[in-house]
Amino acid sequence: MKRTALIGELTDANLGPVTLQGWVSGRRNLGGLIFFELRDRSGAVQVQVDPAQAEAFAQADELRAEFVAEVTGTYGLRPQEQRKGGPADYEVLADGVRILNRAKTPPFELDKGGEVSEDVRLRYRYLDLRRPEMQRGLMLRSRTWAAITEFMEREGFINIETPMLTRSTPEGARDFLVPSRLNEGEFYALPQSPQLFKQMLMMAGYDRYYQLARCFRDEDLRSDRQPDFTQLDMEMSFVDQEDVLDMNSRLLAHIFGQVMGQQLSLPLPRLTYQEAMDKYGSDKPDLRFEHALVDVTDLFAGGEFKAFAGAEAVKVIAAPELTRKAIDELERVAKQNGAGGLAWLKRGGEGFTGGISKFVAGITPQLLKRTGVEDGGTLLFTAGDWRTAVEALGAVRLALRDLFDWTAGGPQFAPLWVTDFPQLDYDKDSGTWTYMHHPFTAPHPDDTALFGTERQHEIRAQAYDLVMNGFEIGGGSVRIHSPQTQREMFRAIGLSDEEAQEKFGFFLEALEYGTPPHGGAAWGFDRLVMVLSGAASIRDVIAFPKNNRGQDLMAGAPSPVAEGQLEELGLRVQE
Amino acid sequence: MKRTALIGELTDANLGPVTLQGWVSGRRNLGGLIFFELRDRSGAVQVQVDPAQAEAFAQADELRAEFVAEVTGTYGLRPQEQRKGGPADYEVLADGVRILNRAKTPPFELDKGGEVSEDVRLRYRYLDLRRPEMQRGLMLRSRTWAAITEFMEREGFINIETPMLTRSTPEGARDFLVPSRLNEGEFYALPQSPQLFKQMLMMAGYDRYYQLARCFRDEDLRSDRQPDFTQLDMEMSFVDQEDVLDMNSRLLAHIFGQVMGQQLSLPLPRLTYQEAMDKYGSDKPDLRFEHALVDVTDLFAGGEFKAFAGAEAVKVIAAPELTRKAIDELERVAKQNGAGGLAWLKRGGEGFTGGISKFVAGITPQLLKRTGVEDGGTLLFTAGDWRTAVEALGAVRLALRDLFDWTAGGPQFAPLWVTDFPQLDYDKDSGTWTYMHHPFTAPHPDDTALFGTERQHEIRAQAYDLVMNGFEIGGGSVRIHSPQTQREMFRAIGLSDEEAQEKFGFFLEALEYGTPPHGGAAWGFDRLVMVLSGAASIRDVIAFPKNNRGQDLMAGAPSPVAEGQLEELGLRVQE
Repeated sequence: MKRTALIGELTDANLGPVTLQGWVSGRRNLGGLIFFELRDRSGAVQVQVDPAQAEAFAQADELRAEFVAEVTGTYGLRPQEQRKGGPADYEVLADGVRILNRAKTPPFELDKGGEVSEDVRLRYRYLDLRRPEMQRGLMLRSRTWAAITEFMEREGFINIETPMLTRSTPEGARDFLVPSRLNEGEFYALPQSPQLFKQMLMMAGYDRYYQLARCFRDEDLRSDRQPDFTQLDMEMSFVDQEDVLDMNSRLLAHIFGQVMGQQLSLPLPRLTYQEAMDKYGSDKPDLRFEHALVDVTDLFAGGEFKAFAGAEAVKVIAAPELTRKAIDELERVAKQNGAGGLAWLKRGGEGFTGGISKFVAGITPQLLKRTGVEDGGTLLFTAGDWRTAVEALGAVRLALRDLFDWTAGGPQFAPLWVTDFPQLDYDKDSGTWTYMHHPFTAPHPDDTALFGTERQHEIRAQAYDLVMNGFEIGGGSVRIHSPQTQREMFRAIGLSDEEAQEKFGFFLEALEYGTPPHGGAAWGFDRLVMVLSGAASIRDVIAFPKNNRGQDLMAGAPSPVAEGQLEELGLRVQE
Repeated sequence: MKRTALIGELTDANLGPVTLQGWVSGRRNLGGLIFFELRDRSGAVQVQVDPAQAEAFAQADELRAEFVAEVTGTYGLRPQEQRKGGPADYEVLADGVRILNRAKTPPFELDKGGEVSEDVRLRYRYLDLRRPEMQRGLMLRSRTWAAITEFMEREGFINIETPMLTRSTPEGARDFLVPSRLNEGEFYALPQSPQLFKQMLMMAGYDRYYQLARCFRDEDLRSDRQPDFTQLDMEMSFVDQEDVLDMNSRLLAHIFGQVMGQQLSLPLPRLTYQEAMDKYGSDKPDLRFEHALVDVTDLFAGGEFKAFAGAEAVKVIAAPELTRKAIDELERVAKQNGAGGLAWLKRGGEGFTGGISKFVAGITPQLLKRTGVEDGGTLLFTAGDWRTAVEALGAVRLALRDLFDWTAGGPQFAPLWVTDFPQLDYDKDSGTWTYMHHPFTAPHPDDTALFGTERQHEIRAQAYDLVMNGFEIGGGSVRIHSPQTQREMFRAIGLSDEEAQEKFGFFLEALEYGTPPHGGAAWGFDRLVMVLSGAASIRDVIAFPKNNRGQDLMAGAPSPVAEGQLEELGLRVQE
């Protein structure tokens, strides 16, 4: 190649003649000279063109923002008095400038890209992606991918691609459908995850499988969701839960080492689902800061404050001094998360004022002791059934985090495992049982006798989530490998044997032919990269994302198609 | 993990107590002892169980084919007289046997899997995939993937995922469509390749991009095609053709070294399109053997054999002695490939007999000299327009290869580059011009003035194919980076400016904002792995392929879907 090096990779070894290629910005005439910046993905350098270099000067004079140019010249230090230390101390004195391509004036200035509406950024994504912060995010993504590949290969995992045109899978979300032309009236589904295929790869004896797999869910979109996303998918045979947790913990440590240059100390902290919910009101607690929920159910039990007296759980969190307006705002958060309200107290000296203070006279010392609330600070309470009380106050905890910047000064990353999830979840609205993780998760062996009994909500699953900074980064489970247990599980979630056969017959049959014990995990790759890079949205770490209407504003997708195309598929758009 | 090692990875360091897990085959009672094979993906070992180990013996007695079992015992050498050298000299004397899972009798015997109909193999793919030859193919695939990743990372390529739900792309094949629920009446297309996106990544300054990308084409299927396939996709900025050829050659050499343990000597041989067609009658010539076509147009020109006298090209290939029946069969091949017929001669001493011998009296010495046909051997001729003559005889050359095993004794792999493809192809049937590679391929800079003239078929493209053993493994081109040239190219293939704008407007616009010179390549990953592994079909190196009706016989896809699902998409199946 003609270029000497990428601009950001120039070192003192390159002092002297160089050839560089890149994009132009900041061209200006100054004291008869032309200056501009030449930029590539690795960095930028100042170029100076003297009118004595007549041809180069004439070309440089034509340069405008985002022109593509090749510069030959001398790479060297700037004059002593202009040096400040760092790469900006260097410049190129051009003896040749060649315009490789011209550019229209961009619709937005790249260095102000962060202030431009996302619609414009997505419409001109090829320009948005030139911004150094976008390039850093995508390069971090690429390095993370490579680090994962390196680790998985070293550990003997086999990379196997699973089908993209498949049968509707049971993750419970809506499928994207693909009409089949060769089988008119029939449809493929794009995979929600390779779950069944990876389990069948274990049945097929591959022992350790991994894949960075594209998955699809036709859900209504939120800022943190895309219709397609990338999943690090893995599965291992002849393992128990500890084997899977160990492997995944070491993978995370490898990523931290390779990508972030940080050492992650193992083993990772663990909380059971029960502990996580109880202390942080979330099954994906943000442990970059403590400020745990405190249980005070016993203090109010049978007391005079009737709203709390009979509650299954009363939870409190200690906050700094809050205005009435702030409390109202936090109450809104609590209510959005199911609570009936958010009770409060303000500490003044050794007592409490405001809110529910008239009910706590008898328990003031205990409240002070358990919560450690500072003088002038506020206590915020939820009460009700346990799950609602903790979840609502957990949401308040996160709102307080944002309000008071509670993560400042804490660790940059706080990964942990959450374990012992319940196997089954009861949906009050529909009065039905459903799976908590997915229907292929193995129950704890001590709990299998509870299937079909009134205590089946007590069945613990051999399921686990990898959580970091309040995000679920990954999750998995030991899988059911017995056809009988699999049938029992289908029954527990209300599938008749016939329905199970209809939906999962091929899988139930496969289980009969010598299935090894196995388990695995799946990581949300986009979300992992988002958390590692500190990006605000997964859209910032995806090269060409959809907006929240599922549209690609640049290419113009989706779009109407020709009548003939539908004809071939035997389909009609409904009027 | 409980196991000592994978079975195939046991070494003399493991002599002594071991724990192994895997699948059972060949259980038999012999002289009061039980013997069986325990197998995992890495290998198999014989297990011997003595009735003195009462509990182990009882379990071993229950074992049947494909049961999953854990064996503890002593790994050691078999008695001296049973050793033959190699892994089969070792065995395990079991002191514990534990059945981890049972298996129904498989529908076919795994070691006879090669003889079973492909439908049965696909229906029970999880069993088919247990066969060691299938596992070897998929493990080779995984190693190839890892070798590619390693090389691309080392060379500074950035792995970037491009959209799977996108706009209909211009590769010319039929798109798979995905109805959009959020944008009713509109459709995404699954990508035929990431072509436009990778070019936009170059516009966005990523400099070097790669991806192992799933691509989709809704074509009628042949043995060598799948509706979705995997492509190694790459693109580089600020390069010319030589840079791309060099990078891709070194990648192939890296794969050979890492995966096959073979050294590939570089540079690879090259043929121009013209040479390849002329000598081998194919733009993807199999160079594991020579047997080139010989041009004899001049010998017949204006001669008495009228069928040849006025032909644009007369081509001949020398074959061993052929029966009349074999010649008829080869003529069928020639006709299938467009030839009017296949003329022949049999050499007897210094003359020719049979076929067209009465016409060649005057040119016998020249024919003998140019073809070097052996005594008793056969000459086979095609004539007509150049392309038909060479293509038909090229097909005959491959048929002769199979008939006479011409690749025996030759090199196992014969990679080469084919270069200088024509930019445009004229379709006689429709009387229209089309692109030869794709419409984004840059023409040779010396030839651009020919656009729109009657000589535009002479325009050479900066396009190249990587060919191995008669298969096109990959191909690519330097791309057009000038909006003007891109518009000219669209016009040359008969797109009006309005049509070009309608189809590619966003891309033409992107070209205006500072596009660097760039070029790249795409490899057919499935086909590469097929050729490297010696598999007969790409289906053998894909874990869960479709049959030639596009069906997944195991999962049952495609399938009818519920009326409600179509309702949500605003679609109806036509009656």
